[in-house]
Amino acid sequence: MSKYSESGVDIDAANEVKKRIGKIVSNTWGEEVLSEVGNFGGLFALPGGIKDPVLVSSTDGVGTKLKVAFMAHRHDTVGQDLVNHCVNDILVQGARPLFFLDYLATGKLKPETVEQVIKGLAKACAENSCALIGGETAEMPGFYAEGEYDLAGTIVGIVERNEVVDGSTIEADDVLWAFPSSGLHTNGYSLARKIIFEKNELGIYDELPGTGRSVADELLEVHRSYLKEVASLGNYAQIKGIAHITGGGLLENIPRILPEGVSVEIDASSWQVPAVFEFLRSSGGVEKLEMYRVFNMGVGLVVIVPPDDEGNVPKGEYRWRPFPIGRVVEGQREVKIINV
Amino acid sequence: MSKYSESGVDIDAANEVKKRIGKIVSNTWGEEVLSEVGNFGGLFALPGGIKDPVLVSSTDGVGTKLKVAFMAHRHDTVGQDLVNHCVNDILVQGARPLFFLDYLATGKLKPETVEQVIKGLAKACAENSCALIGGETAEMPGFYAEGEYDLAGTIVGIVERNEVVDGSTIEADDVLWAFPSSGLHTNGYSLARKIIFEKNELGIYDELPGTGRSVADELLEVHRSYLKEVASLGNYAQIKGIAHITGGGLLENIPRILPEGVSVEIDASSWQVPAVFEFLRSSGGVEKLEMYRVFNMGVGLVVIVPPDDEGNVPKGEYRWRPFPIGRVVEGQREVKIINV
Repeated sequence: MSKYSESGVDIDAANEVKKRIGKIVSNTWGEEVLSEVGNFGGLFALPGGIKDPVLVSSTDGVGTKLKVAFMAHRHDTVGQDLVNHCVNDILVQGARPLFFLDYLATGKLKPETVEQVIKGLAKACAENSCALIGGETAEMPGFYAEGEYDLAGTIVGIVERNEVVDGSTIEADDVLWAFPSSGLHTNGYSLARKIIFEKNELGIYDELPGTGRSVADELLEVHRSYLKEVASLGNYAQIKGIAHITGGGLLENIPRILPEGVSVEIDASSWQVPAVFEFLRSSGGVEKLEMYRVFNMGVGLVVIVPPDDEGNVPKGEYRWRPFPIGRVVEGQREVKIINV
Repeated sequence: MSKYSESGVDIDAANEVKKRIGKIVSNTWGEEVLSEVGNFGGLFALPGGIKDPVLVSSTDGVGTKLKVAFMAHRHDTVGQDLVNHCVNDILVQGARPLFFLDYLATGKLKPETVEQVIKGLAKACAENSCALIGGETAEMPGFYAEGEYDLAGTIVGIVERNEVVDGSTIEADDVLWAFPSSGLHTNGYSLARKIIFEKNELGIYDELPGTGRSVADELLEVHRSYLKEVASLGNYAQIKGIAHITGGGLLENIPRILPEGVSVEIDASSWQVPAVFEFLRSSGGVEKLEMYRVFNMGVGLVVIVPPDDEGNVPKGEYRWRPFPIGRVVEGQREVKIINV
């Protein structure tokens, strides 16, 4: 006699999970959310006051940063990484978040782990005024190793059509402002793990040399959201373009927003590269320029503003103060990094 | 000297994938799509003519049906399963699709496989007038077995607020109409695989007894979308509630739309259960009622309409003709299946 639970899928565990996460999730809901936990789809009433609304959406995953979370048995930060990453991905086009849906897949559901992950998602959603409106928690026997899972998510935001930020007006002499990253954010982890755990044979709770922190603390530092920072900057400067520095680093992400006819020149000496990247470069034997293609090198987000606005930007309003790192020059949509 | 490619992540393969899928994806785009392939977020202009728009969204995965696709080396159907599943999940609340984003995660990117998966997604998106507006293709060394991947996606649709279908007006004597499923759709695969491949030791290309088809053809049959069927039915009958019969079967999905004070009674003798389910039950030794909790048993979608409308429903307009399977009765939000 076969029962579904014998196939490795536990519907009772799934129901336990639903109970645990219901309240955590609904705490992120404002009055725009019309649905209830357990509905087939999440219902979100479009906010009024927008004349010509454009929906901006993005899907992303946490990537192999998850492996570090597994090693440290710390599951309440990866959800924050994911949400903040997605918030930044639509922020670069001028959108503010409306709602978020997650996908959490694992071999065998552990309700406590799922609860921690969802708590992280809900925390970041609340911080970004974003409703955690739905998601899928999938139990897939034979897909994931014991104790492991994959986590991805989708954000939907909104922007007035004539306020879409698309980089099209970027021109020579515009200035690049950088917002500092909090660490690796969500990319470069496959290489970082190789260097730290294999080449240097460090343990997860060992000190990461030069940082004064453990490997776990440094590598699991939460990916920042720049939503409030960019909104604040927008009060003082015309924002022509924004690039989220993810996989591909400064070298590959900035060209995505450059129009024909311009390049950028970044002065690497204009900021102090955080110690974690220095450790990865020197102990991993990674070429300097390769570092700028794989890691964010301390820059989480780049905003391009006209040169005249540079002086208007107040220094005190940000949790993380932006700093100028370079200029737009004539060219073929390239990124030149000087003083590396 | 470490390079990123040595860590198992291949940025060139990722770029090859982007090139291959760009055109496939943009074929699903209408004029509402404002973004280009490679943008950080997907831009979708909200359609006009809706007074009080509600966005309805859903995230889902393909689940262990993927394992069958891996066995058969057939990667162009799972994307269709996923999109159609999501279309149905928002259709049950009265919404029509606007756009879709996918998440495809694998250990080692194979551009040909990714292309096949995306082709399936794009095919179903086109069939459902849904733009495949974005997605994430993640290479995660050490997460997935050789040749395997996970696939999930998110759909966003829209409905006029006063046209949301929520089941709240369902009352005793209303009639349940069923649309036939094409097979297992996207649930019950962990148990089905156990029965077919382990208990019965069938091969992927063996005939599945009673079906006249191979295991691969029967198990990979594409999950149907009921978008056009329900729109057509809506021309003749007041649609009070819709349930998508996924994991949990008829027993657990119908109560999700029932208001307090009513139950439903389904007559199992009112349709012929497809051969694949009969084979799973008899050769797997699964109890009859358990079958109705794990599998759809031939019913992909249930629509609840008033009794007076029953006679109005024309039989000829559907690709898959709906049939009455039961009635709403007074009760405590339960599903009673008679004549099992």
